[in-house]
Amino acid sequence: MRILGLLTAGFLAACASAEAPTETAPVRALSEILEQSPVEDWRAVDQGNLLYMQLPAGRVIIELAADYTPLHAANIRALARAHYWDGAQIVRSQENYVVQWGRDEGDPRPLGEATATLAPEFERPRAGVDITRLPDPDSYAREVGFAHGFPVASNGRTTWMAHCYGMVGAGRGDTADSGSGAELYVVIGHAPRHLDRNIATVGRVLQGMELLSTMPRGTGPLGFYETPEERTTIISVRLGSELPASERVNLEALRTDSQTFRDVIESRRFRRESWFLDPIGRINLCNVPLPVRVRS
Amino acid sequence: MRILGLLTAGFLAACASAEAPTETAPVRALSEILEQSPVEDWRAVDQGNLLYMQLPAGRVIIELAADYTPLHAANIRALARAHYWDGAQIVRSQENYVVQWGRDEGDPRPLGEATATLAPEFERPRAGVDITRLPDPDSYAREVGFAHGFPVASNGRTTWMAHCYGMVGAGRGDTADSGSGAELYVVIGHAPRHLDRNIATVGRVLQGMELLSTMPRGTGPLGFYETPEERTTIISVRLGSELPASERVNLEALRTDSQTFRDVIESRRFRRESWFLDPIGRINLCNVPLPVRVRS
Repeated sequence: MRILGLLTAGFLAACASAEAPTETAPVRALSEILEQSPVEDWRAVDQGNLLYMQLPAGRVIIELAADYTPLHAANIRALARAHYWDGAQIVRSQENYVVQWGRDEGDPRPLGEATATLAPEFERPRAGVDITRLPDPDSYAREVGFAHGFPVASNGRTTWMAHCYGMVGAGRGDTADSGSGAELYVVIGHAPRHLDRNIATVGRVLQGMELLSTMPRGTGPLGFYETPEERTTIISVRLGSELPASERVNLEALRTDSQTFRDVIESRRFRRESWFLDPIGRINLCNVPLPVRVRS
Repeated sequence: MRILGLLTAGFLAACASAEAPTETAPVRALSEILEQSPVEDWRAVDQGNLLYMQLPAGRVIIELAADYTPLHAANIRALARAHYWDGAQIVRSQENYVVQWGRDEGDPRPLGEATATLAPEFERPRAGVDITRLPDPDSYAREVGFAHGFPVASNGRTTWMAHCYGMVGAGRGDTADSGSGAELYVVIGHAPRHLDRNIATVGRVLQGMELLSTMPRGTGPLGFYETPEERTTIISVRLGSELPASERVNLEALRTDSQTFRDVIESRRFRRESWFLDPIGRINLCNVPLPVRVRS
């Protein structure tokens, strides 16, 4: 079929043309860059930062952003240890926006060692944070890039995580300190960056994103389901560090401060595959892939 | 539930603060802006530019971008008149990327008055195109905004439609003129703007987007389905102008060159609803809503 052409060339290598302004070595395909990467450019994802969410259709694995939102990460860990989300539900699926889950007020569960509200953690001081910067402009921030494995933005004084596709945030009420991590959402559409600095982003989906993004959309306001039958019940949410070793997935994430990751960025900024007639030479923060692999 | 707070304030009005640099009148909520809009700020969408795609689960309506890609629009109209897509299939659903449909080579269908290949139409001269510009920077283009109802970008010399969420494009092979509109895809994730100027965007989904975005993801390379059973068969695709009046949906789209649309943009650039602690004051091209309503 002709449509196969849309991306079939995506993993073929091509040679750099003489005009390539930022590359001198022959261009490698993304798959080659990853295959040839040194082992020290990868980090074993800390099982204490992994949430395993078991749904009827499969498992979602989320990495908590302990560096940017340590209070939320600690609270979410405590909630997982209390089995807070066992029997919680997917309550909302809004087209091109978010899928959200939590417990009904009518079906409470003890919080364990977690607290019901938290300090905001919407941003942190820029000083001391090592950001792998992108050179291209961003619609929302003076500076964008990656830190500690997550997409981030900055105004020079503070830095915050960006609401890219697959990022997980903690719902809140009208006041800054009204969130706790008990109600979480994941971005399933074009990055809603207007949420940046308005709410705490707490992590990112590493596996099973398709289970959330294909949830039937809710027909109520804001994509909330209108009947209990439409909701999906969450079987369990566990911390990786609480699981038996046999049930863990040993995930490795490419370090975002590594040369390999810088090469990944350039391979996506300049598309040298034969299918591309224009290599573009630019990229948006949320179009940069964040490679994850299972340790063999 | 606390999570309700994430956006429940989304349609409440708020007053402009003294710092608001581009607004002098009291700020209106998006819903108020649309309710108070003059009738001449809306256009009846030409039924000759509407594709009604009937799927087993419901109907998708696509508007063709006759101004930017007239050759593709004409070819796609001819294919619809030939009932080319009746019995065609959804062949691909790639997470955070595209859903694609077409006919198998093993199941051909006459093209009617359509041709098998077309001139590229990836961009057109900038001169003479009236673009409602956005003031905020864009990662991919010097200038972005809206023209003829679609999100567009420009380098000053040429202009092209942007691959925002819900935009529809025409698959092609390795050469620029190898597309025809017979195989189409729709964006279901963060805008893949690196496809801009590399392929013809031919329209936008106006209704039924959720039927496409929630298609189970394909597990083959690039999200192609691996077995025939996973594919969804398209019942029919018809031009609105070929349908009996009783089967048409009389859609109106907000004119993107209207004052109402400029007010919509500002209401999304500056979020004055009480939930927002930071009004942001910026927006990305693909985060601007393009309002559509059914004519009563």
